[in-house]
Amino acid sequence: MDVLVLKAWLNILGSENVLTDSATISATQTATFATTQRVLAVIRPGNCQDVQACVKIANQYKTPLYPISCGKNWGLGSRVPVEDNCVILELSRLNRIIDYNEKLAYITVEPGVTFRQVYEYLREQKSNLFVSVTGSSPYSSLVGNTLERGEGISPYGDRLAHVCGFEVVLPTGECVHTGFGRFANAKTTAVSRWGVGPYLDGIFTQSNLGIVTKMTMWLMPIPKYFQEFICVINDSYRLEKLIDTLQELVLQETIKSNSFTFWNCYKLLSRLGQYPWKLMGEKTPLSLKERKGIERWFGSGSLYSASREQGLAERRVIEQALEGQVDELIFADQDSKSDLLKENPSLGTPNDKTIKSTYWRKKTKIPLQIDPDRDGCGVIWLCVVFPFDGKQIVEALMSIESTVKSSKFEPNIAMSCTSGRSIQMFIAIMYDRNVPEEDQRAMECYERVFQQLIQEGYIPYRLGIQSMNSLPPAQDDYGKLISILKQGLDPNNILAPGRYDFRSDWPDQT
Amino acid sequence: MDVLVLKAWLNILGSENVLTDSATISATQTATFATTQRVLAVIRPGNCQDVQACVKIANQYKTPLYPISCGKNWGLGSRVPVEDNCVILELSRLNRIIDYNEKLAYITVEPGVTFRQVYEYLREQKSNLFVSVTGSSPYSSLVGNTLERGEGISPYGDRLAHVCGFEVVLPTGECVHTGFGRFANAKTTAVSRWGVGPYLDGIFTQSNLGIVTKMTMWLMPIPKYFQEFICVINDSYRLEKLIDTLQELVLQETIKSNSFTFWNCYKLLSRLGQYPWKLMGEKTPLSLKERKGIERWFGSGSLYSASREQGLAERRVIEQALEGQVDELIFADQDSKSDLLKENPSLGTPNDKTIKSTYWRKKTKIPLQIDPDRDGCGVIWLCVVFPFDGKQIVEALMSIESTVKSSKFEPNIAMSCTSGRSIQMFIAIMYDRNVPEEDQRAMECYERVFQQLIQEGYIPYRLGIQSMNSLPPAQDDYGKLISILKQGLDPNNILAPGRYDFRSDWPDQT
Repeated sequence: MDVLVLKAWLNILGSENVLTDSATISATQTATFATTQRVLAVIRPGNCQDVQACVKIANQYKTPLYPISCGKNWGLGSRVPVEDNCVILELSRLNRIIDYNEKLAYITVEPGVTFRQVYEYLREQKSNLFVSVTGSSPYSSLVGNTLERGEGISPYGDRLAHVCGFEVVLPTGECVHTGFGRFANAKTTAVSRWGVGPYLDGIFTQSNLGIVTKMTMWLMPIPKYFQEFICVINDSYRLEKLIDTLQELVLQETIKSNSFTFWNCYKLLSRLGQYPWKLMGEKTPLSLKERKGIERWFGSGSLYSASREQGLAERRVIEQALEGQVDELIFADQDSKSDLLKENPSLGTPNDKTIKSTYWRKKTKIPLQIDPDRDGCGVIWLCVVFPFDGKQIVEALMSIESTVKSSKFEPNIAMSCTSGRSIQMFIAIMYDRNVPEEDQRAMECYERVFQQLIQEGYIPYRLGIQSMNSLPPAQDDYGKLISILKQGLDPNNILAPGRYDFRSDWPDQT
Repeated sequence: MDVLVLKAWLNILGSENVLTDSATISATQTATFATTQRVLAVIRPGNCQDVQACVKIANQYKTPLYPISCGKNWGLGSRVPVEDNCVILELSRLNRIIDYNEKLAYITVEPGVTFRQVYEYLREQKSNLFVSVTGSSPYSSLVGNTLERGEGISPYGDRLAHVCGFEVVLPTGECVHTGFGRFANAKTTAVSRWGVGPYLDGIFTQSNLGIVTKMTMWLMPIPKYFQEFICVINDSYRLEKLIDTLQELVLQETIKSNSFTFWNCYKLLSRLGQYPWKLMGEKTPLSLKERKGIERWFGSGSLYSASREQGLAERRVIEQALEGQVDELIFADQDSKSDLLKENPSLGTPNDKTIKSTYWRKKTKIPLQIDPDRDGCGVIWLCVVFPFDGKQIVEALMSIESTVKSSKFEPNIAMSCTSGRSIQMFIAIMYDRNVPEEDQRAMECYERVFQQLIQEGYIPYRLGIQSMNSLPPAQDDYGKLISILKQGLDPNNILAPGRYDFRSDWPDQT
């Protein structure tokens, strides 16, 4: 790296925000699985103008930048860039809550703003609104999670469907505003997604075409009446029919989107504690099928209603539909269980239970300060979407479980009902990076599952940094379209090279 | 126009699909307001490959194409291109329903497929699903209406939020598929909006960046229990509070998005019949304030419930909220009114009542074959979005009504609750094009309202062909972004020149 480029950044950001010390570099080069990419430096702009200036300098010196918000992309690559020799552009100093409107139910934030921060802010405001939280860390970024198209818990969980008004720094340093935001006096920027003219927000998600420095996220009102329910099936043979029943309930919106989740027994166990080393005589993997004969599935749903009467009517619709299809069905409402409204992720309280579960195979205790990267927690996450169809999903599950088990890992699987038409599946391969050769074995297992799913036509909807080039080629001229966008917007290819960059599909690229 | 370009198209499409006769040309040059643009020819490809070939020829001869689906963009320019000397690329021959799935609730269509066609198809299939219809013509295109970001009646009315899997011919003739559609064997193309990588559908709406030749639209299940309700207020002084009450009901989803509509008395009258020429002694405009002292507002809503019990509980929430706020409130359910499920636009039956209302000021009877372009119906439509806030909306309404009345037209106004955060307003200026100088007077009135709204910060979300250059300049580098997209994708500027093309905001453009 040219020493002049560092100097140029130093002039703007000050020495405390241009980091090249080996501790910082080494930390940012570490993910929850094996990586080889080297990081040249970490630079930390403080506002949008800083970001513009940093990007212009990067262009001048042809030095690639890899933007991260809070850097909590655990299981998918953490802070590690897709390609070697990038400078990390860390946006955590842009951490202002810029606007908030209780009546129209939105909040406008910068990329450094975390779910925890918004939760606390809304509590201070005595707000009746909540943000759809991530299942991941409370300290992850609203903007980062949205741009990755990560999903949230609760009905606003399809994030891109509930955000608008981006401020974006283009790869050459210009700044644009999406929706109505480009008009100086527009009063509808925070309440209208599409604006007038082409809808552009989408091209800045899962992409390397711009750096989002501001975004409005819509907030959901806390319902007048809230219920939760859980159901259990003792073996997966009932799963197919149950999925199809839920499909009808979600399609007709009795259960709202992103408000019903399935966990298999391994997922549940990993949330409750660490691997039962003693019980298992230090052996891996854990197979409940072998030990107990059954592998339970657990479902949990939330109901958001405008009155007690309406909520109870919805409950009856669900009870009737699930009649005879589950081994247990338990409802709790805010009256019967007075703490249901408190600390509930389905009502916007973030928690770190999923992140704690990354210590599943570790033999050390879970530390107070959780950091899976630092602590050698092995996690490889695979996110895939299915048609909401029992037969297809159960067939795929059987094949995934079999592959993971044959690699001697636990098939840690969760599913979320994204809409009445699709289900997202989250497969976590969890291991201890300090066990020799586990890195390699885990990645081989991941690759087998990944390829198997793709062959069946189930394409991941989100990619880890190791898989950006692993999708099958496009059957059309898609690569040309992406090439035109990327080459037009980022002629020097300085922004997050290789990240969701599918130009290679176009053989004619220059 | 080069005669060789016509020959080239003739070779591909045959003479019956390359039209230059004066009757056709004259018809396509006619809108519901004054225009001067000349059309060179109409070409009618029969499939996606035809479209690709036509576009390549257009590039070769640098002849601009203006794509239309069914050409029913009444009130906003009908079939007339934004710029002079275009060839119309009419897609009505691409009229196949390509896929349909009852369980996963979607239909895949070409741009020539109309709302009437889908309605009849679903009825034939004895489907339990319905498409969100347009308030406009039953013979308008699902694809065309979606790309214009026209809104539908019923909860799936925000069309771009309920479509996916575009097939797009780029301005240089290549073909791409959005979402998961680029992968040969993907099973999730019709059920997942975002795919993997940048979300691209949006850039092909309100744009001139591609020609959509296929699209999947999601269908809503007919609810187990359906209700409608209407409310009346006798004067607009109660409107502000009523709007704010509805905001809460829509935000908490008791009333779903696009399921409650306000009409003022002029809008209602125009739907019930033609102008009362006799009563008014042949004079215009009609002012109910002057004649009757009051100008009523009418609200109508639909409730889609999963059971009778749930529906009645929702009804009670609404009754309590509207208590004392309206002069009349009447509910009807499918039991009390057995024909409620039949021929109901809120359940997917298209009708032509709005289009008939374009004959409002005509002194001739409404013909059997409706054609506002041919019959000299004057209609200028203005579509604008507001924050869902009673005070702001009522203030704007008063100023709009005053401007329209001072121009001697009736303020024909409808509003739809798009979400808990915004309301769309539809202002129709209706007149008789055969009355001398009315064209000019009406356009002047439109321009005054348009400028007035923009000055207040309420930007139209959809533009007529006459207003593509009337928006205020961007306060940022937006023009550069649009320039890069347009110049990259359409180097010869052959696709719908001037249509939602905001490059002029960028002074450095080449």
